[in-house]
Amino acid sequence: MSEHSKFLLADSQIPTAWVNVLPSLPEPLAPPLHPQTQAPLGPEDLLPLFPMEVIEQEFSPKPYIDIPGEVLDIYRLWRATPLYRARRLEKALDTPAHIYYKYEGTSPAGSHKPNTAVPQAFYNKRAGIRRLATETGAGQWGSALSFAGRLFGLECTVYMVRVSYDQKPYRRMMMHAWGGEVFASPSDKTNAGRAILAATPDSQGSLGIAISEAVEDAATHTDTNYALGSVLNHVLLHQTVIGQEAKLQMEQAGEEPEVIIGCFGGGSNFGGLALPYVLDRLAGKGPRIVAVEPTACPSLTKGRFEYDYGDTAKLTPLVKMYTLGHDFVPAGIHAGGLRYHGASPLISHLVHLGHIEARAYSQLPVFEAALQFARTEGILPAPESSHAIRAAVDEALAAREEGRPRNILFCLSGHGHFDLAAYDNYLSGKLVDFQYAAV
Amino acid sequence: MSEHSKFLLADSQIPTAWVNVLPSLPEPLAPPLHPQTQAPLGPEDLLPLFPMEVIEQEFSPKPYIDIPGEVLDIYRLWRATPLYRARRLEKALDTPAHIYYKYEGTSPAGSHKPNTAVPQAFYNKRAGIRRLATETGAGQWGSALSFAGRLFGLECTVYMVRVSYDQKPYRRMMMHAWGGEVFASPSDKTNAGRAILAATPDSQGSLGIAISEAVEDAATHTDTNYALGSVLNHVLLHQTVIGQEAKLQMEQAGEEPEVIIGCFGGGSNFGGLALPYVLDRLAGKGPRIVAVEPTACPSLTKGRFEYDYGDTAKLTPLVKMYTLGHDFVPAGIHAGGLRYHGASPLISHLVHLGHIEARAYSQLPVFEAALQFARTEGILPAPESSHAIRAAVDEALAAREEGRPRNILFCLSGHGHFDLAAYDNYLSGKLVDFQYAAV
Repeated sequence: MSEHSKFLLADSQIPTAWVNVLPSLPEPLAPPLHPQTQAPLGPEDLLPLFPMEVIEQEFSPKPYIDIPGEVLDIYRLWRATPLYRARRLEKALDTPAHIYYKYEGTSPAGSHKPNTAVPQAFYNKRAGIRRLATETGAGQWGSALSFAGRLFGLECTVYMVRVSYDQKPYRRMMMHAWGGEVFASPSDKTNAGRAILAATPDSQGSLGIAISEAVEDAATHTDTNYALGSVLNHVLLHQTVIGQEAKLQMEQAGEEPEVIIGCFGGGSNFGGLALPYVLDRLAGKGPRIVAVEPTACPSLTKGRFEYDYGDTAKLTPLVKMYTLGHDFVPAGIHAGGLRYHGASPLISHLVHLGHIEARAYSQLPVFEAALQFARTEGILPAPESSHAIRAAVDEALAAREEGRPRNILFCLSGHGHFDLAAYDNYLSGKLVDFQYAAV
Repeated sequence: MSEHSKFLLADSQIPTAWVNVLPSLPEPLAPPLHPQTQAPLGPEDLLPLFPMEVIEQEFSPKPYIDIPGEVLDIYRLWRATPLYRARRLEKALDTPAHIYYKYEGTSPAGSHKPNTAVPQAFYNKRAGIRRLATETGAGQWGSALSFAGRLFGLECTVYMVRVSYDQKPYRRMMMHAWGGEVFASPSDKTNAGRAILAATPDSQGSLGIAISEAVEDAATHTDTNYALGSVLNHVLLHQTVIGQEAKLQMEQAGEEPEVIIGCFGGGSNFGGLALPYVLDRLAGKGPRIVAVEPTACPSLTKGRFEYDYGDTAKLTPLVKMYTLGHDFVPAGIHAGGLRYHGASPLISHLVHLGHIEARAYSQLPVFEAALQFARTEGILPAPESSHAIRAAVDEALAAREEGRPRNILFCLSGHGHFDLAAYDNYLSGKLVDFQYAAV
């Protein structure tokens, strides 16, 4: 076991391939279905939205997929990200557990999202696309895509969920600084948005609605493609750089993690850390893996595992996933990035097969853990990431209860620099909890 | 010359001593004078404000001062910071120059300020102090001290310049998240603040006023010390980790910098990068060194080199420095961290001796350069740091003009996550320039 608290990698140790778990699954994923015909989808059905290289990755049978040099060039701006042992937090908790965290907040956009924004922008540029359309919740994904698009010379249009657009103006300004175009969603720019506004003029929006708008924008403009920041296989694939680096860094630390934790919205930072460890589990020797979601939007713990649309207007393919229903609009919690009605089909499948546990927390205990983390470890975490902190703290407290050590590894997916109004609300006692109520 | 664009150091290469230029100066610094008697100051005169270990560093004749292990433990959270070559910016400028930058925005507080906040908190804790009082402009220093104080169990009271308190509420919230107490300055908490408010009820504040308040608070409470984030010798000493690391990283890059650039408010990030190179100059072989300040507060380019107070209420010692006068209140530019009437006595001395050049820019060309940097290199810079970017861009354009290469190294002292309202103003054409007018 290392005496150090930080574990770094040289540029030469940044992964040069993404890890694909699809060929290792004990049962294959259920195929996506066409939104109108409900027949299994062929790759060509996705061409109005994605470049062919991305579509191939979505269904690829290869265990590894090489990362293009142009993508690695940009990755090196912030990768490899550091892995820390949270010794000051351990001390504050008086726990025999060892808590490690992989910190993805050092990217220019402040989260793990650029790990997939950069390759998606690259493949779209190579396919001759001029503009990308996308949705964003808290703004992490929209800023990541504005950043990545700009570096490859692509325009970027972002439909930002209304509640976050109002709560987090700095995220919008950040997208503008990188040249992105931002509309509050539901907007009057699309049929999908106008239909929602007609029915609910004061709609707070949701990721499901914003996805409808971005997909419609891309499908109706030939020079424009759609880019998704979570949920799909290729997105999780790109994020596996996180888990691959973490494995090397845990080797440096000289310890094996016994429980892996990530916050869960669509599944991208969670999958990024977990999937390389899922391969170990599928080979019979992996750690426990825990996905942590908000009680206000508990797709994995309260949803049904069934075919559903990825968006509200039913423009996307149907995928088999844990879902609260494509028309579910979650309460306006501060962890805007976790307000999605569905879940990655790949992670849903692994939950269904029993390889991944799921757990839900409401936002008050999450902010309590966030503040304890900020005041011991020094890094101010995003509300989304703080769901993982809450679970890690509870695992460490359970270890104390049992009087036995436990090696915990979680993903700190981003910083909270644009979430300080939420901290302010929490500190002044204005933050309230939301529970899920089935419609 | 290296083909890479990023240069990293292992934890084992983080400097273990700070570099002190005082014993190498060709002429000694003029001594600070007592604010009432105007007699040269003895170390014991500073004991109401600072712990003895810090006072010794202020006047130390030693060329190196060891960094305590407890400080290194915290430094390792974000140090060594990366050094980059700005290849995409070079390409956009079509310049033969090579532009390197040392990025200090990866610290939890988002700037170079924790480099000195951490040792100052450590030495105060070791001296038995319970609380620290300080001032802050844009909030970088106040958040750094709130962060560092919290890690060593010290309370922290921050007097924040009114214009920034209003412009940058997120910085205030960040200090709260780390447990800091924040008052808009001038405040009604001190005699100094009340006197200003009586004369100018709508005062926007200045660093000089906020320093008066913090010094008064510390001097009137025995369990409380004062901490300054810039100007003084010990602050610049702590910041020399920046330049020491940069020298190792430029060796990796295989190039010698020919011009060193830093933005200049009180002088701390500038001195941190420049002082190790100043030693080379004093030995007859160093690069050009350029300090960049705002035209709205041009202490080095328009000030007088003379004894002046460090604060508005004349509570601090008199120091010999370039100054616009201790009662000068600069216009409310967005680079709040550069709104100081004076300048580090050490840097002033080196400017006076001809070892350092000074240059001033107004905020419109500064934001133009900031946006060009964000859109090529990907990192969103603080308005303060963007003064250095502007000068680096101009040096690179001069190299193009001359058709000759030039190796440029600048300090990117912090990110602009809390300055997005300024970017928003710039992009919407609302930002205006301010020029200095002598009173």
